[in-house]
Amino acid sequence: MAPVGSGLWRTLRAHQVYGANTDVGKTIVSTVLCNAVQRQKQRAAFLKPVSTGALDDADNRHLERYGAGALTKCLYQFDEPVSPHLAAKSKTIPRDEDLLASIHQTLSGWARSDIDFALVETAGGVHSPGPNGNSQADLYRPLRLPIVLVADSRLGGISSSISAYESLLIRGYDVQSVLLFRDEYYQNHEYIGDYFRNKSIPLVHLPAPPAKPSQTDPDAQQRDEEAMLAYYGQASRESEILRLLEEMTIKNKQRIERLEEMTDRAQELIWYPFTQHRGMQAKDITVIDSAHDDYFHTFGSSGTNQEGELRPTFDGSASWWTQGLGHGNPELSLSAAYAAGRYGHVMFAGTVHEPALSLAESLLKTLDNPRFSKVFYTDNGSTGMEVAIKMGLRAACDRYGWDASQEKINILGLKGSYHGDTIGVMDCSEPSTYNKKVEWYRGRGHWFDFPLVKMVDGQWKVEVPAELQEDLGPDAEFSSLGSVFDLNSRLDSDASQRYKKYIHRTIKDLVETHGMKFGALILEPVILGAGGMLFCDPLFQRCLTDVVREHPELFSPNATPAKTSPSWSGLPVVFDEVFTGLYRLGRPTSASFLDVHPDIAVNAKLLTGGLIPLCTTVASQEIFDTFSSPEKSDALLHGHSYTAHASGCTVAVDSLRAMSKMDKDGSWDGYRADWQNTTSSTASTPEVWSVWSNGLLKDLSCAEPVESVFAIGTVLSISLRDAEGAGYNSTAAKGLQQKLAAGGDQFNVHSRVLGNVLYLMSSVTSKPESLQELESLLRSALV
Amino acid sequence: MAPVGSGLWRTLRAHQVYGANTDVGKTIVSTVLCNAVQRQKQRAAFLKPVSTGALDDADNRHLERYGAGALTKCLYQFDEPVSPHLAAKSKTIPRDEDLLASIHQTLSGWARSDIDFALVETAGGVHSPGPNGNSQADLYRPLRLPIVLVADSRLGGISSSISAYESLLIRGYDVQSVLLFRDEYYQNHEYIGDYFRNKSIPLVHLPAPPAKPSQTDPDAQQRDEEAMLAYYGQASRESEILRLLEEMTIKNKQRIERLEEMTDRAQELIWYPFTQHRGMQAKDITVIDSAHDDYFHTFGSSGTNQEGELRPTFDGSASWWTQGLGHGNPELSLSAAYAAGRYGHVMFAGTVHEPALSLAESLLKTLDNPRFSKVFYTDNGSTGMEVAIKMGLRAACDRYGWDASQEKINILGLKGSYHGDTIGVMDCSEPSTYNKKVEWYRGRGHWFDFPLVKMVDGQWKVEVPAELQEDLGPDAEFSSLGSVFDLNSRLDSDASQRYKKYIHRTIKDLVETHGMKFGALILEPVILGAGGMLFCDPLFQRCLTDVVREHPELFSPNATPAKTSPSWSGLPVVFDEVFTGLYRLGRPTSASFLDVHPDIAVNAKLLTGGLIPLCTTVASQEIFDTFSSPEKSDALLHGHSYTAHASGCTVAVDSLRAMSKMDKDGSWDGYRADWQNTTSSTASTPEVWSVWSNGLLKDLSCAEPVESVFAIGTVLSISLRDAEGAGYNSTAAKGLQQKLAAGGDQFNVHSRVLGNVLYLMSSVTSKPESLQELESLLRSALV
Repeated sequence: MAPVGSGLWRTLRAHQVYGANTDVGKTIVSTVLCNAVQRQKQRAAFLKPVSTGALDDADNRHLERYGAGALTKCLYQFDEPVSPHLAAKSKTIPRDEDLLASIHQTLSGWARSDIDFALVETAGGVHSPGPNGNSQADLYRPLRLPIVLVADSRLGGISSSISAYESLLIRGYDVQSVLLFRDEYYQNHEYIGDYFRNKSIPLVHLPAPPAKPSQTDPDAQQRDEEAMLAYYGQASRESEILRLLEEMTIKNKQRIERLEEMTDRAQELIWYPFTQHRGMQAKDITVIDSAHDDYFHTFGSSGTNQEGELRPTFDGSASWWTQGLGHGNPELSLSAAYAAGRYGHVMFAGTVHEPALSLAESLLKTLDNPRFSKVFYTDNGSTGMEVAIKMGLRAACDRYGWDASQEKINILGLKGSYHGDTIGVMDCSEPSTYNKKVEWYRGRGHWFDFPLVKMVDGQWKVEVPAELQEDLGPDAEFSSLGSVFDLNSRLDSDASQRYKKYIHRTIKDLVETHGMKFGALILEPVILGAGGMLFCDPLFQRCLTDVVREHPELFSPNATPAKTSPSWSGLPVVFDEVFTGLYRLGRPTSASFLDVHPDIAVNAKLLTGGLIPLCTTVASQEIFDTFSSPEKSDALLHGHSYTAHASGCTVAVDSLRAMSKMDKDGSWDGYRADWQNTTSSTASTPEVWSVWSNGLLKDLSCAEPVESVFAIGTVLSISLRDAEGAGYNSTAAKGLQQKLAAGGDQFNVHSRVLGNVLYLMSSVTSKPESLQELESLLRSALV
Repeated sequence: MAPVGSGLWRTLRAHQVYGANTDVGKTIVSTVLCNAVQRQKQRAAFLKPVSTGALDDADNRHLERYGAGALTKCLYQFDEPVSPHLAAKSKTIPRDEDLLASIHQTLSGWARSDIDFALVETAGGVHSPGPNGNSQADLYRPLRLPIVLVADSRLGGISSSISAYESLLIRGYDVQSVLLFRDEYYQNHEYIGDYFRNKSIPLVHLPAPPAKPSQTDPDAQQRDEEAMLAYYGQASRESEILRLLEEMTIKNKQRIERLEEMTDRAQELIWYPFTQHRGMQAKDITVIDSAHDDYFHTFGSSGTNQEGELRPTFDGSASWWTQGLGHGNPELSLSAAYAAGRYGHVMFAGTVHEPALSLAESLLKTLDNPRFSKVFYTDNGSTGMEVAIKMGLRAACDRYGWDASQEKINILGLKGSYHGDTIGVMDCSEPSTYNKKVEWYRGRGHWFDFPLVKMVDGQWKVEVPAELQEDLGPDAEFSSLGSVFDLNSRLDSDASQRYKKYIHRTIKDLVETHGMKFGALILEPVILGAGGMLFCDPLFQRCLTDVVREHPELFSPNATPAKTSPSWSGLPVVFDEVFTGLYRLGRPTSASFLDVHPDIAVNAKLLTGGLIPLCTTVASQEIFDTFSSPEKSDALLHGHSYTAHASGCTVAVDSLRAMSKMDKDGSWDGYRADWQNTTSSTASTPEVWSVWSNGLLKDLSCAEPVESVFAIGTVLSISLRDAEGAGYNSTAAKGLQQKLAAGGDQFNVHSRVLGNVLYLMSSVTSKPESLQELESLLRSALV
């Protein structure tokens, strides 16, 4: 089923009518508005997606009778006057996606016809369940129509009106107007009026509708009709109503104008991250009006605008690899708001609060590394890695008695690594496009080249760089990705011996011949992300760690291997799991693929499920103890103002819980089965799977424009053939990116490229149907 | 009026009863619960803080009649059955603070007596207004009692119950149980039960209460009473009720146990920012259960626990200088949630969304600097300053043709400056306790010593360091703080000539004799915060900027001063306003105190009003253009995953709006008047004011233990006499800090010290009464 775009049309002002409660007069208010529109010689239409209650009482019938000629339509009619989820039990229930699609289709049809104004009425209150039992506020959210809220004028109505407003707000709705009936006794309109005026939301109060005539009156129906006609005649002419309609027209126009000017304004005011502005034009900027689940709702990306101004665009970079639990997730929104309401931000030096402590507990459980005992909080991967380096370097200098103010201490790493953009962590990567022009950049380390894992022509292989084949041996083929990760077997192989020998010799040479000192080993386990989606042979990373730990004498002549495993040996081992950790690759940690327990690990991105910045640097007790001293100045004197902010920690606790639940409750079993079936696995083969199908990989890897592919967890990487050595400046992947951006029938795709690599990344909650559609887009583009 | 602590007692389980709407049966539910408690031979009590409606219908009367002996109390009784805010119009209205204090006092009294269980019942729905018109959910928030939510079993009740729950949640309440009546037709209890079970909140449904007998029945009252007695007899024995009561007992116990273990757990798991853990004990950690407005609610800080386990503690460091609009501010909580609901986080490279664009627009307006045209987003002050350095260095190297990979480019700054803890910005400060032991720290710059502004013995003065007096002249006295900032006059003075001459000569010497190259001037305008609350003579900072801009030839022989003012001259001037900007010192920018337009400025901390991390680096078009090139690698290749996250930007837009409104609407006029009255100002004297009273400053500055003081905006700094040169390791301020921590009758004070300086900082919304109480605590401690 195709996702719908949010509803916005130039020629049609469409609103959704929500009630603060049931029986607050939504249909009467709708009738007044439609009536008033029709009297202004414009065309109004009324859509009741789901109606419950006796047929001749149905709200659209009421509109037909009193709407002064407004068009009316009901998509699904249930007879019983109960919540739709109960009424629907005895009828064929439309799926939520179908309901949304029907509404969008109806409104788009109206927009193409002569209709100027449309109301989509909900049933009951904002959270009254729709036909499938989901709250209407959640169900209708992808459309994100501007809201007409009908407040409650009865006793208690102040409270229910404000709460209803808040429930809409935290789902990202724009409440554009509030209407209610005047009640001179309770005077809710006074209080509610002040409340909404304070928020610049217009409030209109209407005269109370006529009381129903007594049922004993034989002319009841006729009297009722006369009274209602008179009422609508009067109410629809009230100046406040006319002003409100005018305002609605203006707001729709202004909203589109704002969306139209946003690219120019952004071009004028925004300095974009990672962007060369020369040559960039305003039209290259994507305007995101809102986002829901996997989709941005983008402006100006519809070909013809026949279907409205906003179109769903699949967030194919998972918003820079952060997205985990869907955009606009109401649970995370509530978690963030709860923490904001309970604490705001409270300073963290010398204090403790439940979210920070809970997250430390739950993170340590998730990482499941017996070495870890301390959690340090920062705001993003870059700062978290700065902390990790400070920890690692201090531990090494302390143990080996080096004075770092006098000599250069280096790190050991891999070529193509990336740890963030603050200058300290830039120094942890070899000179590259990213860093070499930064004035204060001074690379401090040695970076190994390494064998890559990829699928070429339907075959998994480990590809050894030509210049290393003499040392590391030739390329090797594997029957499955699982067998690449079968380190238990591979560690006994020749390859392992060659890897270790090469690594050992190289380090020895660097230290002895070149006099280099090393303070930490830093790795992105499995995939080096920003460096170009480089899938490192896990055996190489494992061997590198093993050599470092087994040969501390390489780094300091008298050092001996640690006897107890929680003690670091050789060098502190730092894993940068900012990108690869926390289920990005289908497992709680990417360290588990190497079966290595690092001494320090950094997590961010998915930590908050894709909502707000937060980062953790976790370390062993021994690393922590290095900073313990009678001198304050020996402490890790690092901190940020919002360290361990309550909103971030609360969202993280809830995100970890949600992801861990999915890991265990079978949510991903379909993907697992696909990867299980296609590999010739044995009992010992580790489980490796991806949301991207094995079949897609095989097909893409055989396609002419494709050099190689891989997929693991939520990551799909497609390496395209390109002129030799174009690297980061390559443009080969741009063509594919443009095809995806143009999209298919259902949606566009937002993706990012790294040199000649185009990657796609889903959240952990992406719908299989969306991924299948993406796969078919890729096949059409490449195969 | 003293602030109340949140309500938590060991011997009393106190809950607040909220209704999903009016007339949902709160009192009946309360009666069932009290009845059941009493039947278990425990003592229950029922408190109705505000009651409306005819006297003999009052809810506490109902309790008296049917509560099986439960104690009942009503604090304020109004006769009309309307919202309390209307009923109160004709009566003496208790202030909200008084009402809270009475409730707290009553509950504390009960806790000291033999009462085991107490319910505090609200009126109407969660947002029904209290006597002063404030929503009850906001009014009662400081108490933050665990909530018993009575859901609505009627048609529409699913929606109103869930919305009510959400309104409570976003205010940081813990809803611990939900009760409602069974209604076999609507079956709300089924749906709501699933909903809350999913959130691990127990839901209990009760039989519907008996219908009121017909009024025509002469025995109506008696029948009603009999039916109710029978109902309560049955309902209070239901096993689910007994289980719920048991669960409430357990939860109260577990909550206290958790609070008790938190310090040990934190000691075990948390690696604290800026903390030497050696010697730190679990008991040194403050447990913050929640926060509201200016107060943390801290556990274990009450002397005797006579008043409960939680005590208000004034957040005297404004949570590391971030706090602006009060902890738990419901408006900011809603803003954050709205953005989370509308977008989640959407990636920012190549895209634009309303919050990021709006913030750029509103920030540029706030900063009001004609040089600024581009906004770059990061997550915190440290990363924002890294960006600022990259901008400044590139601009200078580009203009002067330096190859920074081959030569060392330095920055010019002041001694005691601090720009964050990432290694690049650490290098911008001179070697100090903060950075000198960081292995990769390499200070790159020259840092001027400078004259300090302070009040000594009631006299404002500019104190020149002894070793600089030969060059800069002797100390000078000023009649007011305003006259220190009267740069128009002071620039014509001898002091100005001396300052400029000294600065010019020093730079010339550094460049010509020592061969240093400089790439940027970096200043924290007015106050150098983390370096020890150093209040720099603004004339010195102004002269430094003027010399740099008027003498570009100092930095590159052929450079000439910029002819057009938006062009940077000499060096790019970077202002680090992370701490001092955005109303911290009473003005939108601290640059305005110097009347200097920097080329680059960094803002954070108050940017989001004290809620979540966000930082902006703002620059001129010319700086931006330096990075423009056909080469991607010339761009500012910097970015963080959550760059310009929607929640942060939305909260920032709303915070800037709120602070700007206060600046203009007279909210601070009382403070302004206090400072106006006490200065012998002329029309040309710039307005300088503080929330701290001029009288306090005079008195403290004359006190024996005090070396000097100053206050500006929300900042108060007290420098204590100490052994010479103890600096950051000084302990003189610790004594004062401990006295404040012990607090007075009303609240404790959380404060931070920097060496021999103790500072206090309020939010911009702090209540004058709180500040007065703080002032009297300071007087008792020092004067």
